[in-house]
Amino acid sequence: MSDLQALNAIRIVLINTSHPGNIGAAARAMKNMGLSKLYLVQPKHYPADDAVFRAASALDVLDTAVVCDSLDEALAGVDLIVGTSARSRRIPWPLQPPRDFAESLPGFAAQGRGREVAILFGREDRGLTNDELQRCSAHIHIPSNKEYSSLNIAMAVQLICYELRVAHLAPAELSAEPTDGWDSPWATDEDKQRFYVHLEQTLVELDFLDPAAPRQLMTRLRRLFGRVDLDQMEVNILRGILTAAQSKSRAAPHKPDTKQ
Amino acid sequence: MSDLQALNAIRIVLINTSHPGNIGAAARAMKNMGLSKLYLVQPKHYPADDAVFRAASALDVLDTAVVCDSLDEALAGVDLIVGTSARSRRIPWPLQPPRDFAESLPGFAAQGRGREVAILFGREDRGLTNDELQRCSAHIHIPSNKEYSSLNIAMAVQLICYELRVAHLAPAELSAEPTDGWDSPWATDEDKQRFYVHLEQTLVELDFLDPAAPRQLMTRLRRLFGRVDLDQMEVNILRGILTAAQSKSRAAPHKPDTKQ
Repeated sequence: MSDLQALNAIRIVLINTSHPGNIGAAARAMKNMGLSKLYLVQPKHYPADDAVFRAASALDVLDTAVVCDSLDEALAGVDLIVGTSARSRRIPWPLQPPRDFAESLPGFAAQGRGREVAILFGREDRGLTNDELQRCSAHIHIPSNKEYSSLNIAMAVQLICYELRVAHLAPAELSAEPTDGWDSPWATDEDKQRFYVHLEQTLVELDFLDPAAPRQLMTRLRRLFGRVDLDQMEVNILRGILTAAQSKSRAAPHKPDTKQ
Repeated sequence: MSDLQALNAIRIVLINTSHPGNIGAAARAMKNMGLSKLYLVQPKHYPADDAVFRAASALDVLDTAVVCDSLDEALAGVDLIVGTSARSRRIPWPLQPPRDFAESLPGFAAQGRGREVAILFGREDRGLTNDELQRCSAHIHIPSNKEYSSLNIAMAVQLICYELRVAHLAPAELSAEPTDGWDSPWATDEDKQRFYVHLEQTLVELDFLDPAAPRQLMTRLRRLFGRVDLDQMEVNILRGILTAAQSKSRAAPHKPDTKQ
């Protein structure tokens, strides 16, 4: 069962953000993934037009964002605090990939250890301070290219919110989503077998397939169509083509059998 | 074994991009994840300062980007073409989650079906045209909030490049990364057991633990420290504290045994 409601208990906390565009982009990234609680600790320039522009249709997330004077204010009532960290520190901290973190959250809630979670994102140039990192029980590290590992902060928000959404979707929903709303029912095996019989019969009538020496032709055609998950409309279209070919073939003068 | 080299054979193709800032942000997202081949099909405004600004330290990706007059030009030599699609179409196409797609790529290359891959990203406002989508053998769909499903295009590039990186990392690397560079060797079990003996002995000397009625004290302390993966330096620090406590305790006047 999916638990997308749990995403409402996750706070995205941006600390001392310099560029308001990043705040807007983070708001949009959150809403795209179904998160809504944005906390801004001492943003450098806010409110700002650039934040509004980059938020696009996520103005509601900006409008309800909580601007705080201190990190403590943003963390009131929170049960679990995690930080995002690109740099390694003088005293290294255990780093967790975003996927592991996201997948651990539903279990954390299920254990009755509280649900309110805060994820801290630091300054564009310097990330989180050591004091801020030490408030966190885990540090999330996004796997990245060692030659250029510093992601834009809104991008980091997007990636982590995406992992949170995927982790809170039921596996069935994730794989069901792609075929939702397919416009024709899938062909049954019986439909497909009737198609193959029709196909073979037509190929014989077209003198393309010699029943006395069929070789691998039908096998290859079965392998070809077998790789496509045909729907009923497609089977009907293909059989319509076969019927049309049969009709022309039957109307045509009989080709003399060269073996006679 | 990881195969991050394979990321160099993946082209990110941006079609008719309106905002040059998005091109720069996409270049940065690519480099952060280890991709390098950017193709721009008829960008609206390019080159542009905004692209340079948002690319930050990924100017090399911008400098080597191939600007094309047509999609065909961008697809020359490509073995597999996939599109990114947010909208459902009148004729629905099978949609694949980014993770499934990313995880299928190493297998695709291993089957000798070619390695050059192109991933198409459409216009900010209208995505890919039906003609463009029909050039693709698969459509990637990023799971998103039905109330606001349209991601910024550079964000979509970031998410897909991230999934590609994670899929091409060896599982060991992904989980090994976090503890890379820990600054002290991990404590052995022998170290930990000596610590528990020392702890128990100290608690007795401190008259905190009564060997005749130990209750669950040591069990609880073992459970506490067992949840932390202690390193050798931490064990040394803890034992140093115990030794200091013992030394004070031994120097202190003997506490009369109240049971006498």
